Amino acid sequence: MSLGIVFASEVMGTMMLTLLGCGVVANVALKGTKGNSGGFLLVNWGWGLAVMAGVFVAAKSGAHLNPAVTVGLLANGKAEYAPDVAVTFASTMTYFGAEMLGAFLGAVVCWLAYKEHFDGEPDAATKLGVFSTGPAIRNYGWNTVTEIIGTFVLVFVILMLGNGPAELGPLPVALLIVGIGASLGGPTGYAINPARDLGPRIAHALLPIKGKGSSDWSYAWVPVVGPLVGGALGGLAASWLPLVVG
Amino acid sequence: MSLGIVFASEVMGTMMLTLLGCGVVANVALKGTKGNSGGFLLVNWGWGLAVMAGVFVAAKSGAHLNPAVTVGLLANGKAEYAPDVAVTFASTMTYFGAEMLGAFLGAVVCWLAYKEHFDGEPDAATKLGVFSTGPAIRNYGWNTVTEIIGTFVLVFVILMLGNGPAELGPLPVALLIVGIGASLGGPTGYAINPARDLGPRIAHALLPIKGKGSSDWSYAWVPVVGPLVGGALGGLAASWLPLVVG
Amino acid sequence: MSLGIVFASEVMGTMMLTLLGCGVVANVALKGTKGNSGGFLLVNWGWGLAVMAGVFVAAKSGAHLNPAVTVGLLANGKAEYAPDVAVTFASTMTYFGAEMLGAFLGAVVCWLAYKEHFDGEPDAATKLGVFSTGPAIRNYGWNTVTEIIGTFVLVFVILMLGNGPAELGPLPVALLIVGIGASLGGPTGYAINPARDLGPRIAHALLPIKGKGSSDWSYAWVPVVGPLVGGALGGLAASWLPLVVG
Amino acid sequence: MSLGIVFASEVMGTMMLTLLGCGVVANVALKGTKGNSGGFLLVNWGWGLAVMAGVFVAAKSGAHLNPAVTVGLLANGKAEYAPDVAVTFASTMTYFGAEMLGAFLGAVVCWLAYKEHFDGEPDAATKLGVFSTGPAIRNYGWNTVTEIIGTFVLVFVILMLGNGPAELGPLPVALLIVGIGASLGGPTGYAINPARDLGPRIAHALLPIKGKGSSDWSYAWVPVVGPLVGGALGGLAASWLPLVVG
Repeated sequence: MSLGIVFASEVMGTMMLTLLGCGVVANVALKGTKGNSGGFLLVNWGWGLAVMAGVFVAAKSGAHLNPAVTVGLLANGKAEYAPDVAVTFASTMTYFGAEMLGAFLGAVVCWLAYKEHFDGEPDAATKLGVFSTGPAIRNYGWNTVTEIIGTFVLVFVILMLGNGPAELGPLPVALLIVGIGASLGGPTGYAINPARDLGPRIAHALLPIKGKGSSDWSYAWVPVVGPLVGGALGGLAASWLPLVVG
Repeated sequence: MSLGIVFASEVMGTMMLTLLGCGVVANVALKGTKGNSGGFLLVNWGWGLAVMAGVFVAAKSGAHLNPAVTVGLLANGKAEYAPDVAVTFASTMTYFGAEMLGAFLGAVVCWLAYKEHFDGEPDAATKLGVFSTGPAIRNYGWNTVTEIIGTFVLVFVILMLGNGPAELGPLPVALLIVGIGASLGGPTGYAINPARDLGPRIAHALLPIKGKGSSDWSYAWVPVVGPLVGGALGGLAASWLPLVVG
Repeated sequence: MSLGIVFASEVMGTMMLTLLGCGVVANVALKGTKGNSGGFLLVNWGWGLAVMAGVFVAAKSGAHLNPAVTVGLLANGKAEYAPDVAVTFASTMTYFGAEMLGAFLGAVVCWLAYKEHFDGEPDAATKLGVFSTGPAIRNYGWNTVTEIIGTFVLVFVILMLGNGPAELGPLPVALLIVGIGASLGGPTGYAINPARDLGPRIAHALLPIKGKGSSDWSYAWVPVVGPLVGGALGGLAASWLPLVVG
Repeated sequence: MSLGIVFASEVMGTMMLTLLGCGVVANVALKGTKGNSGGFLLVNWGWGLAVMAGVFVAAKSGAHLNPAVTVGLLANGKAEYAPDVAVTFASTMTYFGAEMLGAFLGAVVCWLAYKEHFDGEPDAATKLGVFSTGPAIRNYGWNTVTEIIGTFVLVFVILMLGNGPAELGPLPVALLIVGIGASLGGPTGYAINPARDLGPRIAHALLPIKGKGSSDWSYAWVPVVGPLVGGALGGLAASWLPLVVG
């Protein structure tokens, strides 16, 4: 498969992911929406089904949708990122670039879908929260630990079962995301995906959002570094465990 | 397959869709019901599973249940709307007519199921809300944008995966509806289906509902035009993308 | 298959159904439980998954678990209630008897599981509500209409897709129950099953429940007659529609 | 399969189970989390999907993840605990040991993921509640009855359908856990697994948790004895019933 195909596929899938994922946060958080204060389980289902939609769309390229998954496959020692897509420097950069661009674009479309509610929301931090994650209690070290653990679970479970999200299948991956969110989302809002956090944060910084505040760049490295470390560890563990359990 | 069969199948399926879909709104919104104030996620599951039931029932005719899906298949360039149902002017009109009639009938039965609660509900706008969608913040332009985006996601994901809802399967389609509702339902209540909105609105206008108010015809075009545009764009994108991603 | 096998299978399945189904109502309604006031969606999922467990257990006998399903299959004109179980007067009575006994036993075990919370609950009507359904607004005519509509949906969808719940499969049936509950459960609490309502009501009447009140026998016929009529109509419609849609 | 493989597989699976399972309780209960007061259904989904993740990971060894399941298979008279793992004293002890160790480790990692929230939570009983179950109304006899019933349902349904959780499949087992939690979790918080309760309780006792209180050892036997009895009865019933229903 050409890297152009991989790029287009991952852009569309990751765009779907952040459009629907940021969308559910907008629905729960922004003033005057119909799902306002709809609860954490609503957010979990929203993100889980956002991933499901993304995996459907990007199945052809393996549906990474997440640099931590790409890094996990790399750390796992796979020879291919998807059927017919060899692991190379160029293909790795293609996945990273497509994931970032797709995540950025999805956040832009989410802003359009909720335009009137962004305009009507008085709290700047709530607006940022639609785009990117932030910690419940700010402590960079422990926040990073939480993101490492959550992403480890994601990548480890996916790789114990197959060669990536597309092979495990849209529904199991969706449910896994619902579960990780429900269980490990409490402290940091479960970025567990550098593109999902950084792409929309860049969108927040660039878009002419009425009354927006800081994009909180001081926290921005946590949901990038944590997931990359967690994904790498998950990929390594999933390559070690079969050596033990045969 | 004869168009009579298509008509009967789509009427039954779309009737199931709005009976259960309007039903969950009645349950959450009308005074004195057991599910009163049950939350947005309850509404999302109700509509998702309403679509599941409709897809089960109308599988034979492809289970469009939605003029935006029919238009999406048309824009996509399909030769058939379902196995053995060629795309023609007559078949297109058959789907549209059956979808509208089924949506109307389902809303009538929903009214019967909740008759005592419609009678006991003092607020006229709440009664209309069981039948048809309305915007959280009224802005025809942005409301249309939201409906376009939501319907694009619906039709694009369905067509990336197959030839229509019946081929993608009842459960994935149900979950996709839950996800779109959770994520993009905040501003307009996600009609994403002209028949689902207009059929029940006509029922609202015609039925002798105690203490009913306006059927809000000034908004009625938004959940018709938005979904048709979104469905067409989704169908076009799903025909273009495979040209790129091969 | 001998009718003794059918009887044992349906007793166990229906017992599982009302144990878990009444259980979720106990959890949400009785004083001091961990799921107290857990919401209508929790109740919907509890009943849906109760049916899933029952269908798993009683798969061998077709997993009717519900006289309205048995009546629906009869009205549909089936020759067999399950593979190797002919439709006869004796087999019909065997299903009815097993469904009633199982529903009664499940309610007894539910009472044991929640014994301390039944003892601690001060409101007699809440206790009855764990066992049997009651109307939100008492109107025997409209309450019956609601039960007819809900059971029609259940039996019609099941029979459009196969020869009974076991053939449609545990998960689709579970989701269908979640959907019917969410959408049509508002006025009467969706008995949609005479055994599910009458069996536990008899248990309520017979068990030495501390501080119990009336078993509300004046309403007891509604969730028996409504579901039987709805099931029969669903079975008939599912036999007529294929004549039309081919 | 060597018992070393079984051990490693069950340790990893049960660790995943209590990491995610205790995690959702932490998210709902501890001060300042994003899922705080998220409701009982959130807890049910969290535990259900925790089991799903554990079954994915430990599929190779049959994914017992629970001494009550191991005991149930023993009482059922199985010759193998998993394909290629004979039922022997050594293999039984291997499962028990791995389940306990995994459950302990998962609770430790959960504590790390929620470190800041454990530190910030003022109530000692709430902290213990993240690790282990406790009764809503303390009555050792009736609490044990509730745990017996819940575990009976778990093991009976699993064994009626196959030879263990891995054979029934991750999604049905997950939904069964959601259902048991929703329906029978009200009085005791549904341990239904001695390792899930005792492993984290030992972790609670050993970890340097800020401001922790008693580990409530007086109750600790209930969620061990109840599930073991319930699991054995479930295994026996599932071996008897096929003698009846053929």
